[in-house]
Amino acid sequence: MTTEAAFIAALRAIATSPAARGLADDAAVLDFGGSRLVLTMDAIVEGVHFLPQDPPETVAWKLVATNVSDLAAKGAMPRGCLLTYPLGADDAWDTSFLAGLQAACDTFAIPLIGGDTVRQPQGTPRSLTLVALGEPAAGVAVPSRSSARAGDRLWVSAPIGDAGLGLAVLQNERDAEPASRAALIATYRSPSPNPALGAVLAPHVTAMMDVSDGLLIDSQRLAAASQVAALVDLDQIPLSQAFVTVAGDDRKARLFAASAGDDYCLLFTAPIEATASLQEAAAAHHTVLYRIGRIMNGRGLSLTWNGEAMSLPNRLGYEH
Amino acid sequence: MTTEAAFIAALRAIATSPAARGLADDAAVLDFGGSRLVLTMDAIVEGVHFLPQDPPETVAWKLVATNVSDLAAKGAMPRGCLLTYPLGADDAWDTSFLAGLQAACDTFAIPLIGGDTVRQPQGTPRSLTLVALGEPAAGVAVPSRSSARAGDRLWVSAPIGDAGLGLAVLQNERDAEPASRAALIATYRSPSPNPALGAVLAPHVTAMMDVSDGLLIDSQRLAAASQVAALVDLDQIPLSQAFVTVAGDDRKARLFAASAGDDYCLLFTAPIEATASLQEAAAAHHTVLYRIGRIMNGRGLSLTWNGEAMSLPNRLGYEH
Repeated sequence: MTTEAAFIAALRAIATSPAARGLADDAAVLDFGGSRLVLTMDAIVEGVHFLPQDPPETVAWKLVATNVSDLAAKGAMPRGCLLTYPLGADDAWDTSFLAGLQAACDTFAIPLIGGDTVRQPQGTPRSLTLVALGEPAAGVAVPSRSSARAGDRLWVSAPIGDAGLGLAVLQNERDAEPASRAALIATYRSPSPNPALGAVLAPHVTAMMDVSDGLLIDSQRLAAASQVAALVDLDQIPLSQAFVTVAGDDRKARLFAASAGDDYCLLFTAPIEATASLQEAAAAHHTVLYRIGRIMNGRGLSLTWNGEAMSLPNRLGYEH
Repeated sequence: MTTEAAFIAALRAIATSPAARGLADDAAVLDFGGSRLVLTMDAIVEGVHFLPQDPPETVAWKLVATNVSDLAAKGAMPRGCLLTYPLGADDAWDTSFLAGLQAACDTFAIPLIGGDTVRQPQGTPRSLTLVALGEPAAGVAVPSRSSARAGDRLWVSAPIGDAGLGLAVLQNERDAEPASRAALIATYRSPSPNPALGAVLAPHVTAMMDVSDGLLIDSQRLAAASQVAALVDLDQIPLSQAFVTVAGDDRKARLFAASAGDDYCLLFTAPIEATASLQEAAAAHHTVLYRIGRIMNGRGLSLTWNGEAMSLPNRLGYEH
């Protein structure tokens, strides 16, 4: 019972409504009124998901952005959010947090509509929870993680690994010249999910989720949920210029990128015939899509390097 | 900034959407899909809102019930809930909590549709958050706290003070024979909000909220939100047989009841002409309503005892 998997299995026996999607997707999807309500809830804890010394405005931004990323992955546009906030004795922290909250709500056009404030006992690590509500376009199915099909291509919507490299730079595990350093840290601290892109891709995809824990582990999860196999071409993973400047683009650098986490871009599958529609939809949003692999019959994740099979790294991403 | 009031004032500058209702009501009300979505979020912290030795199944029940009580006060029937749960090392606690969660979700017909599990650092007091979603009947306005009018009568939907007396019994501050003891503790631990009653009252009320922190303080809040004065007839407050058996029904006992909190019944106002409609609606739900006062021009709360004005007690309820 103490593991997340065991607890969620027990919760699943309670959460039998179809809206819960078996607690196996990024969000709940509830028929409401004449529309569908997409709901996601993320909690973050000081010392676990963020550090006491992290700038509070970026803690707020990230809390909103990670929830918006879940909405984007379901093709849903943000409609509102509710926040649980622990009142403390640190005025400056509160003020800075609120500035980040306002900036994120404005940027992602997600109105704050409610919540709760609580007192935690003195010295307790802060625990914050956000619920985000979204709405998909009328008539468009809300993509799940579990409907990828053999023959589909596997895509991502942005370069991979910048956030993970930004964290490594922050922790002085990597050196970087100032421009790359600033760009990578900004990507780590202030993810930029794109719900409008998710909404225009949704009609064309078979399965979609966001990359939060690492491209490899999330690809593995998508394949497992869909009961298919995923193959990722490591050499096809898109890298940013800042990433390549700091880490290079050899096999080791690409394995780092693909298992680093915190990317908060879209990972999706679609049949080969949908390629032109996907690219047109993305172009209309001034975005490029990257084909990084394919879906096959079978189970599990496999990896290639310039067409040759290679073994999986020990660590595919964050497990928490 | 460290006080709840100052923080909420700062949040209000961000939460400018009409759905937020100025963060001054029990719930947010969002137009969605041609209907209205009523949303409430409550967080509870170990050592603040519940005690480490409280039975975990009652912690779960109370978390669900207090949110359902907010929905009931808005005339909304439950549609779903999402939970943030801190995974710990205590299997028995988790198992017992899940049993209470299942019981409450079944009893209140509120499906669990999602949420998040988090790890808190070792030794951290548990922090749990629930979001509940509800839907009002078509064409019925969602009552606010702020629309009571001079001339309205003030009502409650259940006897007052049992939960507070149950807590006092639990803390050995009061003696009670076994039958009353069991009844009062059960009311404290397992509140029974009634959304179906809220829904049938909603068309007839001018303002409605739930009694959570104490009848007097909540009456004062309703009056303040509505910019009117509330007068409570202390001798008209309904008391249960168990309450009277243990605490009597003199002025002191009634002041205790009216400021004790945790009642989770409905507090509402309606014009005198609505009396028959209210009573018929309640009777159809096998419930009796209690007229306990009235609304007047002016501001603030006043109290009478058998028609005579009396001074307010120092403490009107919980402030947190």
